Amino acid sequence: MYSFKNDYSEGAHPALLKALTESNMQQEEGYGYDTYTQEAIRLLKEEMKNPTIDIHLLTGGTQTNLTAISAFLRPHHAVIAPHTGHIFVNEAGAIEATGHKVITVPGVNGKLKPDQVEAVLAGHPDEHTVKPKLVYISNPTELGTIYKKDELQALKEVCARNNLYLYVDGARLGSALASMENDMTLAEFAAYPDAFYIGGTKNGALMGEALVIVRDELKEDFRYSMKQKGAMLAKSRLLGIQFTELFKGHLFWDLADHANHMAKKLQDGLADNGVTFLAKASTNQLFPVFSNQMIQELQKQYSFYVWERVNDDSSAIRLITSWATKEEMVDQFIRDVKEIKTKFEKKQTTFA
Amino acid sequence: MYSFKNDYSEGAHPALLKALTESNMQQEEGYGYDTYTQEAIRLLKEEMKNPTIDIHLLTGGTQTNLTAISAFLRPHHAVIAPHTGHIFVNEAGAIEATGHKVITVPGVNGKLKPDQVEAVLAGHPDEHTVKPKLVYISNPTELGTIYKKDELQALKEVCARNNLYLYVDGARLGSALASMENDMTLAEFAAYPDAFYIGGTKNGALMGEALVIVRDELKEDFRYSMKQKGAMLAKSRLLGIQFTELFKGHLFWDLADHANHMAKKLQDGLADNGVTFLAKASTNQLFPVFSNQMIQELQKQYSFYVWERVNDDSSAIRLITSWATKEEMVDQFIRDVKEIKTKFEKKQTTFA
Amino acid sequence: MYSFKNDYSEGAHPALLKALTESNMQQEEGYGYDTYTQEAIRLLKEEMKNPTIDIHLLTGGTQTNLTAISAFLRPHHAVIAPHTGHIFVNEAGAIEATGHKVITVPGVNGKLKPDQVEAVLAGHPDEHTVKPKLVYISNPTELGTIYKKDELQALKEVCARNNLYLYVDGARLGSALASMENDMTLAEFAAYPDAFYIGGTKNGALMGEALVIVRDELKEDFRYSMKQKGAMLAKSRLLGIQFTELFKGHLFWDLADHANHMAKKLQDGLADNGVTFLAKASTNQLFPVFSNQMIQELQKQYSFYVWERVNDDSSAIRLITSWATKEEMVDQFIRDVKEIKTKFEKKQTTFA
Amino acid sequence: MYSFKNDYSEGAHPALLKALTESNMQQEEGYGYDTYTQEAIRLLKEEMKNPTIDIHLLTGGTQTNLTAISAFLRPHHAVIAPHTGHIFVNEAGAIEATGHKVITVPGVNGKLKPDQVEAVLAGHPDEHTVKPKLVYISNPTELGTIYKKDELQALKEVCARNNLYLYVDGARLGSALASMENDMTLAEFAAYPDAFYIGGTKNGALMGEALVIVRDELKEDFRYSMKQKGAMLAKSRLLGIQFTELFKGHLFWDLADHANHMAKKLQDGLADNGVTFLAKASTNQLFPVFSNQMIQELQKQYSFYVWERVNDDSSAIRLITSWATKEEMVDQFIRDVKEIKTKFEKKQTTFA
Repeated sequence: MYSFKNDYSEGAHPALLKALTESNMQQEEGYGYDTYTQEAIRLLKEEMKNPTIDIHLLTGGTQTNLTAISAFLRPHHAVIAPHTGHIFVNEAGAIEATGHKVITVPGVNGKLKPDQVEAVLAGHPDEHTVKPKLVYISNPTELGTIYKKDELQALKEVCARNNLYLYVDGARLGSALASMENDMTLAEFAAYPDAFYIGGTKNGALMGEALVIVRDELKEDFRYSMKQKGAMLAKSRLLGIQFTELFKGHLFWDLADHANHMAKKLQDGLADNGVTFLAKASTNQLFPVFSNQMIQELQKQYSFYVWERVNDDSSAIRLITSWATKEEMVDQFIRDVKEIKTKFEKKQTTFA
Repeated sequence: MYSFKNDYSEGAHPALLKALTESNMQQEEGYGYDTYTQEAIRLLKEEMKNPTIDIHLLTGGTQTNLTAISAFLRPHHAVIAPHTGHIFVNEAGAIEATGHKVITVPGVNGKLKPDQVEAVLAGHPDEHTVKPKLVYISNPTELGTIYKKDELQALKEVCARNNLYLYVDGARLGSALASMENDMTLAEFAAYPDAFYIGGTKNGALMGEALVIVRDELKEDFRYSMKQKGAMLAKSRLLGIQFTELFKGHLFWDLADHANHMAKKLQDGLADNGVTFLAKASTNQLFPVFSNQMIQELQKQYSFYVWERVNDDSSAIRLITSWATKEEMVDQFIRDVKEIKTKFEKKQTTFA
Repeated sequence: MYSFKNDYSEGAHPALLKALTESNMQQEEGYGYDTYTQEAIRLLKEEMKNPTIDIHLLTGGTQTNLTAISAFLRPHHAVIAPHTGHIFVNEAGAIEATGHKVITVPGVNGKLKPDQVEAVLAGHPDEHTVKPKLVYISNPTELGTIYKKDELQALKEVCARNNLYLYVDGARLGSALASMENDMTLAEFAAYPDAFYIGGTKNGALMGEALVIVRDELKEDFRYSMKQKGAMLAKSRLLGIQFTELFKGHLFWDLADHANHMAKKLQDGLADNGVTFLAKASTNQLFPVFSNQMIQELQKQYSFYVWERVNDDSSAIRLITSWATKEEMVDQFIRDVKEIKTKFEKKQTTFA
Repeated sequence: MYSFKNDYSEGAHPALLKALTESNMQQEEGYGYDTYTQEAIRLLKEEMKNPTIDIHLLTGGTQTNLTAISAFLRPHHAVIAPHTGHIFVNEAGAIEATGHKVITVPGVNGKLKPDQVEAVLAGHPDEHTVKPKLVYISNPTELGTIYKKDELQALKEVCARNNLYLYVDGARLGSALASMENDMTLAEFAAYPDAFYIGGTKNGALMGEALVIVRDELKEDFRYSMKQKGAMLAKSRLLGIQFTELFKGHLFWDLADHANHMAKKLQDGLADNGVTFLAKASTNQLFPVFSNQMIQELQKQYSFYVWERVNDDSSAIRLITSWATKEEMVDQFIRDVKEIKTKFEKKQTTFA
C-alpha cells in the first residue's frame, strides 16, 4: 500500500534529522532564543531581502493561524475567507474559538477576488454586524491553484483601500512558489501580505511553520500570544535547526520542486492514458476523475482521498505528491491505471 | 559556560533520535493515527495497568494544560491552584485566555492542602462568584517537593466530596516518581487524579507530553479540543516514536533517576562544603544559598537562575539537573564552589 | 413622519408603566429574587402548564441568545442556523465571540429543514471540523414566516436522532403564536424546543425576554452564566413587574393580536390597490414591492427599511406593525399609497 | 422588615418614572440613536466640560466593566486590581470569561497604591507572564472609602509612566463625589481616568450606567463591542430618559447627598450609643461592629449583610443607605439599637 493521501506521511528530509542528531548534546537556550532559531530567522530575512520583518517559528498550521489571527484582531473583528479556506473547513472552529467570525464567499477555483471582498464589506455596514478586518487566503489554495502577482496586487489594493489586513496561509507555500506557473520569488511575494507563514511540515520538516509579520503594527508583543496559546516550544532548537537546514542552501526549494515535478509527471502520465481532471494542477495536488470501479481497484494498492462525486459512476480523487514521493511509485501508479483500464475495457468488450 | 538553568537545554536522548531516523521514510497516518502513537498508548496503558484510560500526545506543557482544562470546564467554572502553580505564574494567562479564572491559595512548600480547597469553596458560595470546579496541582511542585500517597488521597477525597476534578501537571512527573521520597508507582499514582500528564520534554524527549484522562465524563470528544487549540500534529509519529522509545523499556525511569541522582550528588557535595538550602531537594531542583559575591563568580562559568533574595548579602539560586547532566560537571561545580569559597576566606583573612 | 420601521419605537404598554410606578417604593430583593420575578415565573409556568421548566428573565435578544447558547455548549460545539438567522446576521458576531461557529444553510422562506440539518452533519464528520450541537431557528423567522406543529416536530426528531439541542429565538414569538396560520398554543409550542425565549421588548415591554429552559441537562448553574455575561439586573423587579403584567391576564396575546391585525389590514388595503408582496404576511412584518419613485414619495412621510432590490425600477420595503401601531396611521398609509399611485398614473397618461 | 442591605431595593426616583410615562408613546429611534440618549450625552459632556469624551449608556455594572475592559485590551493583556475589586470578587469571573487575567494586590482600605502597581509590573517582566495593561479601581471602593485628587494623580502618573490604562468603576461614583471628604467635581475627576462609568442603578435609576471614554485610542468602534456583548438596548430611550432626568438639573447629586447624609446620621447616632466601626464612613456604606446577640435581634426587624467576623462574640455588619432611605427608619434603627443594648445590659446586671 503506497500513500498519495497527503504530504506528511513520511518523517523529515534526512539532512534535517542529521542536523538534529549532530547538534543534539549542545546546550541551548529555549523558547526561541537558541542560536539555531536566530540563525534560521537571519537566513529567512536574507532570503526575503528584508531585515525589518519579524519571524516566529511555530509547530503547525492551525496553531499558526489561530495564534496570529487572534493576536492581530480586536474582539469585534472578523475574517473574510473563501468557502474552501482551511480555517473555515478544517480547523475545528479554531478561529471562532478565539472569538472571531469567519465570513466566507464562494471564491473562484479556490481563490478570493477583490470584488468579493468589497461585497462582504458592503454587507457589513455597522455595529449590528461584525467588522471585517482580515482577508485570509491560502497560496496555493486548497484546490492546488496559485495566486499570480497581479492577483495579489489587486487583493493588496482592496485591503489597503479598506484598512484590512491581508494574511496568507502558506502551508504549501514552497509548492506554490516552485510552481511553473508562478511569477514571484519569495522576496517578491513577501511584499504583498501583512503577514503569512512558510510551511515546513508539508515540505520536508518534522513539523514547523515560519510566521512572517510584515506590517509593523502587528508585530508588538507577538511572543506573548505564542506563549499564551501554547505555541512556544521549550526546545525551540527543534524548529530552529530544521529551518536552518531548509534555508541555508536551496533545500526548501529543491524539495518543493520535487513534489511539483512528481505531480506533473503523474498528471502527464494519466492524461496520456485518457484520464481527465477537475482542474489543471499547478502544484502538488491532482484531482483526476476515475470510474468508481477503477477507484475501488486502485484503493487495493494505494491510499488517497475520494474528493467529490462527479456523477453516478465516477468521482474525483485527490493525489498529493511531496518531497518524499518516490518516482518509481509515480511510474507504477500510471502503469497500474493503464493496466486496470485495459482489463476493464476487455471485460466490457467480452460482455458487449 | 555550562548550564544548570533548566532541564531542556539539550536535544533528546540519542535512542529517540535513532528511532526517528530509522523509521523516517516509512509512510504513516497522521493526527494521532500513526502506528507509533498507537503503540505508545498501548505501552502507557500497560505501564499503568489500566486499559480504560484515554491517552493523547501533545507537544508542550502550556498547550496540554490549556487544552485539557478548557475542554473539561463549563464557562463559569474556575480552577483552584497554589500561588506557585505554573498555570498561574508562567503560562501568560493561558487558562484565563480560555475564559477561566484561576483562584490561588498560598500552598505549603508549593503543595495544596485539602482545607485550603474547602476555604476557597466557602468563599465562592453562589453565582456572584465563579464556581470552583478543578483543582490543579503539580507533582513535583514548582519548588521541587513531591506529593505522597496520603496527600493525594486527601486531595482526592476533598475533590470527591465537593464534586471537583483533580488535575495534576506532570511536566516533571518522572522526577517525582523516581524520587527517593516517593511512595508510588505510576500505576498507583494514576488512581488519584481525574486527569494528568506525563512530561516528556523535560525527561529526554525533543518535546511531548502524554495526557492521561482517567475520569470517563472528561474523555468525550477530546480530539476536537486538541484540533481546535492547534495541539494536534500532522506528523504525530514524532510524538509516538519518542514515547514508544521512552516506555518500551525503562528508559523514561532511567533518565529521571539520573536527573535525581545528579541533584542528590550536587546537594551532598555542596552541603559538605557548608552550603545551606532553601529546602531539601526531593527531585531534580536545588535551591542553594550563596553570597551574592559567590553568585557573581559562579556566573562566569555556569548559567542558572537567581531564585530569590535571602538577605542583603545572599540569595538562593536554582540549579536543575536532567537526564543529560554530565556527572563530571557536577563534580566540577562542587570543586569550583569549594575553591571560590577558600579564595574568599583567604581574602577576608588577609584583610582582617 | 410616522414609523413602520420596527416594533420597538414606542415605550411600554401603559399598564406596565403603571405597575412600575405603583410598586416603585416597595423594597425588593434583587438579582431575580424579587417577588415580581417569582410571580412572573409562576404565571409563565402556569401558562405553559409545565412546572418543571426553568425560566430566567433577561434584558434583550442578543444578550439572551449569547448567554444561553454559550452556557449550553462545550468549546468545540457549533450552531446550525439558516442564512437569515439573527445570530448570524445581526448580532455583531456575539455567538462567535463566545467561541462558537455558526454554520448556516440557505433555509426556505427563512425556515430550516430537517434534511438541511442532516446535510450539515454529514459535512462535519470528525475533529477536523467543529461538532454541530445546537439548531437555532426563529419563530417567526426574520422573513415573518412561522413554523407549524409538523415542522417543529420534524426538527425535534432530527435533533433527537442526532443528539442536537433545538433552540428557538422568540423575539417575536407572541406574533407567531397569535398568527392566524399558527396551530399551537404556547404550552403546545413549548413541547418542541430544548430552550427558547419569549420576547417582551417587541411586544409591549420596555425591555425583557423570558428564557425558558425545558431540557434538564441545560438547566444547571444558568444563573452563573447570566451573572458572568452581565445579564443579571440588580433591580430585577423591572423585568418581573413587566412580565407579571403581560401574563397575569391576556395582555401579552392582545398586544400580539393587535400587531398582527394591523399588518393584515395593511396587507389587504395595499393588495386592494394592486400592490404585490415578496411573500404573504403571517405575522407583523410585510414586504410590499413598490417602484423606487413611490418609495421616495413614501419616505417623505413614513420611516421604514428598504429591504431588497427587486429589479432596476422597484424594491421591496419592510413594514412592521406593533402593539402600538395606530389604526388611523395604517388607514392613512393605504390612502397615501393610493393617492401617490393615482398621481403617478396621471403623469404617465399625460406624457403618453 | 426594613432593608439596609443595598442601594437597589427600591425602583427609581419618581421623576424618572414620570418622564418615562410622559414620553411613552413618542416614536423614537433605537440602539442609542433616540433623542433622549443624545440629550443625556450632551448634558453629561456639559457637566464634565469636555466635548471630546465619548459616552455610552449601558444597563449594569458587570456588563459595563466586561464590555469596556474586553474592548480596551489585547488578548495577552491583564488587569491590576485590589483584592476587594468588584470585578475580582463579585462578577462571576466576567473579565476572565473575556480572556483576561485579573492580578490582585492587597490594597490599603480598599485602595490601590502606585507602588503596588509597580510591584506587579516588576513581577511580570516578559512573555512567560501576562502583560499588565489596565489598572482597575473603584471610587468609592468596596469598603466605602474614596480617592482624593492627589491619590488619583499619583495613580495617573504611574499608569502614564508604564503605558497602562486607568479605569474607574463608578457604580457609586455619585456617593464618592458627594462625600464631605471629596475634593473634586465630576469635571475635575474626569481628568484622571482613561475611562470610567457613572453609576445610575445605585443612585436613583431603574438601571443604567454611563460609560465615559476619555482616551482617544479607546474610543474606536465601541458600539460594536456593546452590540457583541448584548449591551445595547433596542429601546435605548429607557436609559436616555433616565440619565436626562438625573443630569438636566441637580437630581443626581441631590440623591447622592441624601444617601451620604443618611449614612452620616446613622453613623453619628450609633457612635453616640457607643457603637464602633471597622472604619469611618466616607460615603453611603457603614460597617458597625455589634455583638452577635445584638445582630440576631436586629435581624428580626432589619435586613443587612453580616460582613465579617471580628472576634468570637462580635461581627461587623454592612449598612447601606441610598437616595430612597427614609430618615424615619434611620432614626428608628438608632433607637432600636439603643433599646436592645439597654435590655442586654439589664440582663447582664441581673445575672451578675
